[in-house]
Amino acid sequence: MQNAWIISIGTELTLGQSVDTNAVWLARRLAEIGHRCDRHITAPDDLEPLVDTLRQAAAQADAVVVSGGLGPTDDDLTRVALARVAGVELAPDARSLAQIRAFFERRGRAMPERNAVQALLPRGAQAIENTCGSAPGVLLRLERALVFALPGVPFEMKRMFDRDVAPRLSADSHGDVLLSRRLNCIGKGESDIGELLADLMRRGANPEVGTTAELGTIGVRINAAGETRAIAEARLEKTEAEARRRLGALVFGRDEETLADAVGALLHARGTTLATAESCTGGLIGKLLTDTPGSSAYFKGAVVAYANEAKVELLGVDPAALRQHGAVSPEVAEQMACGARRRLGADFALSATGIAGPGGGTAAKPVGLVYIGLADGAGVQARELRYGADAPREAIRLRAANTALNLLRLRLLG
Amino acid sequence: MQNAWIISIGTELTLGQSVDTNAVWLARRLAEIGHRCDRHITAPDDLEPLVDTLRQAAAQADAVVVSGGLGPTDDDLTRVALARVAGVELAPDARSLAQIRAFFERRGRAMPERNAVQALLPRGAQAIENTCGSAPGVLLRLERALVFALPGVPFEMKRMFDRDVAPRLSADSHGDVLLSRRLNCIGKGESDIGELLADLMRRGANPEVGTTAELGTIGVRINAAGETRAIAEARLEKTEAEARRRLGALVFGRDEETLADAVGALLHARGTTLATAESCTGGLIGKLLTDTPGSSAYFKGAVVAYANEAKVELLGVDPAALRQHGAVSPEVAEQMACGARRRLGADFALSATGIAGPGGGTAAKPVGLVYIGLADGAGVQARELRYGADAPREAIRLRAANTALNLLRLRLLG
Repeated sequence: MQNAWIISIGTELTLGQSVDTNAVWLARRLAEIGHRCDRHITAPDDLEPLVDTLRQAAAQADAVVVSGGLGPTDDDLTRVALARVAGVELAPDARSLAQIRAFFERRGRAMPERNAVQALLPRGAQAIENTCGSAPGVLLRLERALVFALPGVPFEMKRMFDRDVAPRLSADSHGDVLLSRRLNCIGKGESDIGELLADLMRRGANPEVGTTAELGTIGVRINAAGETRAIAEARLEKTEAEARRRLGALVFGRDEETLADAVGALLHARGTTLATAESCTGGLIGKLLTDTPGSSAYFKGAVVAYANEAKVELLGVDPAALRQHGAVSPEVAEQMACGARRRLGADFALSATGIAGPGGGTAAKPVGLVYIGLADGAGVQARELRYGADAPREAIRLRAANTALNLLRLRLLG
Repeated sequence: MQNAWIISIGTELTLGQSVDTNAVWLARRLAEIGHRCDRHITAPDDLEPLVDTLRQAAAQADAVVVSGGLGPTDDDLTRVALARVAGVELAPDARSLAQIRAFFERRGRAMPERNAVQALLPRGAQAIENTCGSAPGVLLRLERALVFALPGVPFEMKRMFDRDVAPRLSADSHGDVLLSRRLNCIGKGESDIGELLADLMRRGANPEVGTTAELGTIGVRINAAGETRAIAEARLEKTEAEARRRLGALVFGRDEETLADAVGALLHARGTTLATAESCTGGLIGKLLTDTPGSSAYFKGAVVAYANEAKVELLGVDPAALRQHGAVSPEVAEQMACGARRRLGADFALSATGIAGPGGGTAAKPVGLVYIGLADGAGVQARELRYGADAPREAIRLRAANTALNLLRLRLLG
């Protein structure tokens, strides 16, 4: 595959004041047309870093896509930097100037004189027409690299990439295609999963397999390259099948599929329903379940019983159990699950009660202690989870919610 | 100001398969402590690009923060690359190894042997303890640059940056400071807010003021530079005061303060309590409220009545009202709020019922139609919200939750 670099220009990006959404979009589109993004560099609106970055890219990349720095103001330096690296002068391009004037006329305005600088091109470069903005793009070769400079405004950049850049790069890519897939796993840590897949994760293999830890879930990425889409697809599928064989029930979904989606699909397929009784998760399990469109088919509802009275009043938890064992106990988790199942008329119910912190922990019941309950027609069980007392509230809550959903998933899988 | 580079490691990042949220967070935090981020480079999990990038950073940056590549698997190469650039060997660090073992023990597991590689350090480097994950960080000097390598998992990285990296870098910074603040607003659109602040938003002004639209909320960013922290702070505060004067009750919070935090603080200050009755939001309002530590002081709980039977059974909604007006109606929103207030024994109750889509809409009740109810001791009111039918499910739900919380906020403010 060809090796591409993405360069994003803007001080608002380097200072973290705006989030760069162009780079992710470009990297995915480049992969689809056979260019693997190997570096993404964000540089501020200053000439020296820009020239320095372009010089490196010129020496190391086959293709470079620059976004930003093509505006009409003094801090727009992409044209100047390209000319500097190419060792040529900037000269006005008559056709671009006419297009910029026409762009303003369509909006009923005369072109401000300042915008004339946008029609300057390094000698020998070609303009890339911008039909929805005032900044034309620039195409030129710098040493090894074919360089495309596009505006930073996302919809202008995307339009120009798809219309002019992609066809040009596809022709250059000698046919190679990169396809990707992610298997979403839960139930073991990253190193255990890495061990199960060790030989598939050899460096330089095709497909390439790698793991990423999220909060309580592990993503297994598979990237397959091939001379054609069909070849890449066949490689991807073979490796996916092998990974799934080894990982078994650890895999709950693919690509964007969430754990709640997976649980929902199982409930739906079996014609069964679910309710939740939430204390420390505060509605998070219900929120995750109802992120899935159509979840009303299997999700009856939740009782978020944050206060003890609510546990008694709405879930029928025995006040004596609360006094004797405390709200954070296996007994109360079980009673909460049973109560939600009965009150909401569901086949299954999940409950969660615990100490999400940062306050409220004791030696016997530290922050990070959570009990999960699962009730069905056959009975109820509780499970104890312990996350470090140092884990942030958000992580404890999300891990507890994911563990509860996974408990039900495994039950549904039998 | 000192010149900092941020290096993010991961093939999933260069290929656009995961979005890098660390870099934006790091750039902002670095600016606050006098280090201006001048370059952000994302490199894949391959040794050569990593070594190449670290070499450049070593020659050009005062400080470098690397995130990612510290995991236990073969594609985690940050330790190897650091040793290569430093020209030293990797050697086991006994203290880190003990900490990794203890990390697994706290979770009731033995450390997998594979994780021992995480205790390897380039000779002469110092470990940075990771109290919430298995990957210790690495601190070493490479030529000009002080390099901090941290794990890619956001909460581990942030914890370690705040505890160990920031204090070390603050001591190193001399000269200009850039301070930033965000005022979080709800109730008007970005262009209306832009108009209220037009003269403060002039380009090149110090402080610099800009706006960003989120889902239903608007952020007003203020960046103030100064030769000392005190000077920057004085500038920031003057502009913040002026912006607040113009924006009035549109401002609900500052920086990371959420709308749920603001509502919670008002409830707490008045010694009052809240319950929610949620249909289309599915627990999201409860989840947002309980993201705030200590929310048990004012949040009684929620009933997520996704199914109609749950609305009747748990909230006492009149079945005749459901038949006559439908679940998505002002009448049912009012009855849900009253039911939650009564059943959960709270001073206030919020409810939400609507069509979050993408399915389930009709001509009379399109996707995006939501009713919000607010009940208190004096009575109940419902408000109709209409979001475009092509708004994504997630956006409709979050906007509805935010609008409900803001309704209560304005009531509490009087």
